[in-house]
Amino acid sequence: MTDCQGEGIGPVTTMELYEKLTAQGDKVRSLKTAKADKADVDAAIQLLLKLKVDYKGVTGQDYQAGCPPSDMAVSNNRQLGNGGEEDTVDPWNVATNSAKGVDYDKLIVRFGSSKIDQELVDRIEKVSGQKPHHFLRRGIFFSHRDMHQVLDAYEKQKSFYLYTGRGPSSQAMHVGHLIPFVFTKWLQDVFNIPLVIQLTDDEKYLWKDLTLEDCHRFAEENAKDIIACGFDVNKTFIFSDLDYMGSSPEFYRNVVKIQKHVTFNQVKGIFGFSDSDCIGKISFPAIQAAPSFSNSFPQIFKGRKDVQCLIPCAIDQDPYFRMTRDVAPRIGYPKPALLHSTFFPALQGAQTKMSASDANSSIFLTDTPKQIKNKVNKHAFSGGKDTIEEHRQHGGNPDIDVSFMYLTFFMEDDEQLEKIRQDYTSGALLTGELKKMLIDTLQPMITAHQENRKNVTDEMVKQFMTPRPLDFNF
Amino acid sequence: MTDCQGEGIGPVTTMELYEKLTAQGDKVRSLKTAKADKADVDAAIQLLLKLKVDYKGVTGQDYQAGCPPSDMAVSNNRQLGNGGEEDTVDPWNVATNSAKGVDYDKLIVRFGSSKIDQELVDRIEKVSGQKPHHFLRRGIFFSHRDMHQVLDAYEKQKSFYLYTGRGPSSQAMHVGHLIPFVFTKWLQDVFNIPLVIQLTDDEKYLWKDLTLEDCHRFAEENAKDIIACGFDVNKTFIFSDLDYMGSSPEFYRNVVKIQKHVTFNQVKGIFGFSDSDCIGKISFPAIQAAPSFSNSFPQIFKGRKDVQCLIPCAIDQDPYFRMTRDVAPRIGYPKPALLHSTFFPALQGAQTKMSASDANSSIFLTDTPKQIKNKVNKHAFSGGKDTIEEHRQHGGNPDIDVSFMYLTFFMEDDEQLEKIRQDYTSGALLTGELKKMLIDTLQPMITAHQENRKNVTDEMVKQFMTPRPLDFNF
Repeated sequence: MTDCQGEGIGPVTTMELYEKLTAQGDKVRSLKTAKADKADVDAAIQLLLKLKVDYKGVTGQDYQAGCPPSDMAVSNNRQLGNGGEEDTVDPWNVATNSAKGVDYDKLIVRFGSSKIDQELVDRIEKVSGQKPHHFLRRGIFFSHRDMHQVLDAYEKQKSFYLYTGRGPSSQAMHVGHLIPFVFTKWLQDVFNIPLVIQLTDDEKYLWKDLTLEDCHRFAEENAKDIIACGFDVNKTFIFSDLDYMGSSPEFYRNVVKIQKHVTFNQVKGIFGFSDSDCIGKISFPAIQAAPSFSNSFPQIFKGRKDVQCLIPCAIDQDPYFRMTRDVAPRIGYPKPALLHSTFFPALQGAQTKMSASDANSSIFLTDTPKQIKNKVNKHAFSGGKDTIEEHRQHGGNPDIDVSFMYLTFFMEDDEQLEKIRQDYTSGALLTGELKKMLIDTLQPMITAHQENRKNVTDEMVKQFMTPRPLDFNF
Repeated sequence: MTDCQGEGIGPVTTMELYEKLTAQGDKVRSLKTAKADKADVDAAIQLLLKLKVDYKGVTGQDYQAGCPPSDMAVSNNRQLGNGGEEDTVDPWNVATNSAKGVDYDKLIVRFGSSKIDQELVDRIEKVSGQKPHHFLRRGIFFSHRDMHQVLDAYEKQKSFYLYTGRGPSSQAMHVGHLIPFVFTKWLQDVFNIPLVIQLTDDEKYLWKDLTLEDCHRFAEENAKDIIACGFDVNKTFIFSDLDYMGSSPEFYRNVVKIQKHVTFNQVKGIFGFSDSDCIGKISFPAIQAAPSFSNSFPQIFKGRKDVQCLIPCAIDQDPYFRMTRDVAPRIGYPKPALLHSTFFPALQGAQTKMSASDANSSIFLTDTPKQIKNKVNKHAFSGGKDTIEEHRQHGGNPDIDVSFMYLTFFMEDDEQLEKIRQDYTSGALLTGELKKMLIDTLQPMITAHQENRKNVTDEMVKQFMTPRPLDFNF
């Protein structure tokens, strides 16, 4: 996976959209023929027009009745509708012109996923019997696919498993990298289910100017930070692709199955690959797809292929799982469900994802308390006013203030956070005071992480990364 | 690999050709400047022109001084020169209009490999201390790359290993499928070196309408026929891709390395893949390439990456190894050397390869003596005359007579074979008599094979197919 785990673009294959459109066209015609209410006819026509716009956005072509699309490719970054500039969101690029960051509501529409609304949050609370994680309460995990279906089954005692991952492009991980893992751990704890974590060292080798050995070493180093999040070795399997591909014939069999059912045209449409890309990149998406199917892990699921997978990740990873969901029914497997997170903003602002190669773009898990303090004070983009007087008078803007954004990720107390928002907006709270609150939150958190990581031995890494049964009966 | 193992198109990468051309251009200019003999200048110009034609054939573009080719792709089936129709030879198609079969001399020129001439045959005899196999004596293995280099090193006590394979597309193997294995066994015996045999069950799954399970089963069934050729379990490792990829991290590492260094443009040029091919096909060539590198088998070569590989195979497999040889130096490995065989003709004539799906196109390893007799009598294309009288008077044509061709493959006695040729050409030997000789050669051979195969137990197959050290010290 790439730096930020994400995904979640949902349902629409072009074929599904085409069929919807055809059905809607039929409906309009029959309403007209039946001389139905004008309001009904108008509503039907409006939906038809919307579907046509969607279709063009997804396929790049006008809908033509009787001429189905030849390809399963769904929209990558093409525009739906005729709006202005769209945010760029794919596994390798995230960019927006807005200081507030990516417009996630638009992204849900464009990707065809579903919003995590209050009803779903309440339902998770009801089914799990636990207060929802603040990432859910605050819309940090904001989009999903098939989560209701997962809960329906869970209520009927049908379990599922979690799959997330990371692309180990360097030894350095920043706080943003922890988001999917922190949330995944919460999910694992409240649902008591197995978790598999893929480290795509092969992907990093293919995309970056790194040796295989470096990528594999980064995978093991990153595994330590992941383990330091507190995962239970009896419930969690972490694997490097470079190792696991070479130790599981079942995993490779699924990779080949997926590779047989995806064409170059399709990955070109989904990922924007070109003819001058290496064949490793072109076939890699199958490797990120394979852990979505439970029989890729016979040691855990005893060969069962029907255990539903739920993937918490950042929305930029969605293209991989859009492809996976398209392939799944064609090879006899259930589609993985998804929970998508927003991106963790860079200190400099929410326009882009952070870069592991720019030390000042985020708080790293290796930063000292002093470094944290300096970085926040120096680099965290402020939504405050230029002078204290102005700030007191007009107040700051928390929506573009990176320190406030970071607090929404890491401050657990909802009331305290809301008070900060109000005080900052009113001007009662100054930028320096807000930054201090963030520093006071981050310093002990990072120190605790470093302590935890220090206690992760090579032996423990080996245990987590050894294919073996987990404490579950499937 | 595909049905017929082969390969051997040699040396020319476009870059090598480009450099040759540039050097030849310089030579022509300096000869002209020096006012050299007209004959010398003309000869140099002629060579220059020939190289330009070759270059265009290989790259599809005109040579331009100072503008090196961007791509490694070498000629697949494009024409070199301006001749008429060319034979088609690639891993999936072999076709010619000539009843004598493919024009192998032309193929050597087109593919840029080297002819196995009498000098090389003599040298193999000298170095191995054994009479060359009749496949060598009779030009059935007719083309090579770097074989002299292999022998040079062998004379200096530097050993090498053999790699060949088969694509298990069905349970049925015919006598033609044995050619590379019979010859490889001879090489192994005379040089006393390790052998790895790849069964590309993943390839067959990707290309054919078969299940993974079928392909894997065919691999195990085919392994029995291969083992029945008499290979030594202490010197030979047979593997199914579906199994070995999932049991050797080192093998997968080499696959990824190769995949990083080959673009879609390149496999498009070499194999003719298109945008609508599945991503599995597109990346597969790396899997056939990987066994060419000794560190794909750490259990045999103790992690050494510098043990030279020699690949005996049918010439249609050459595109894979052309690609492999291009990649090898870029990832720090020696280029594999090659020995290429001609194709084994179908009973109906030498225009095409046999088809495992047409029971009457060849003699299968499961045929009864009666079936062999009937097939040869009914289907073997004859170079004889229509009536006995005509035949006695004008004689037959052994060059297009399939029974005679088969005898060149399976009759070991050179003198006897030569006598048959003469008698058939003169008309002294009738078609029916020639066919009887073939039947008398095939029947005991196939019966013996069936006996040997019967003695190959599942346990033996498992032994051959278990990754393990062999009886060699590397």
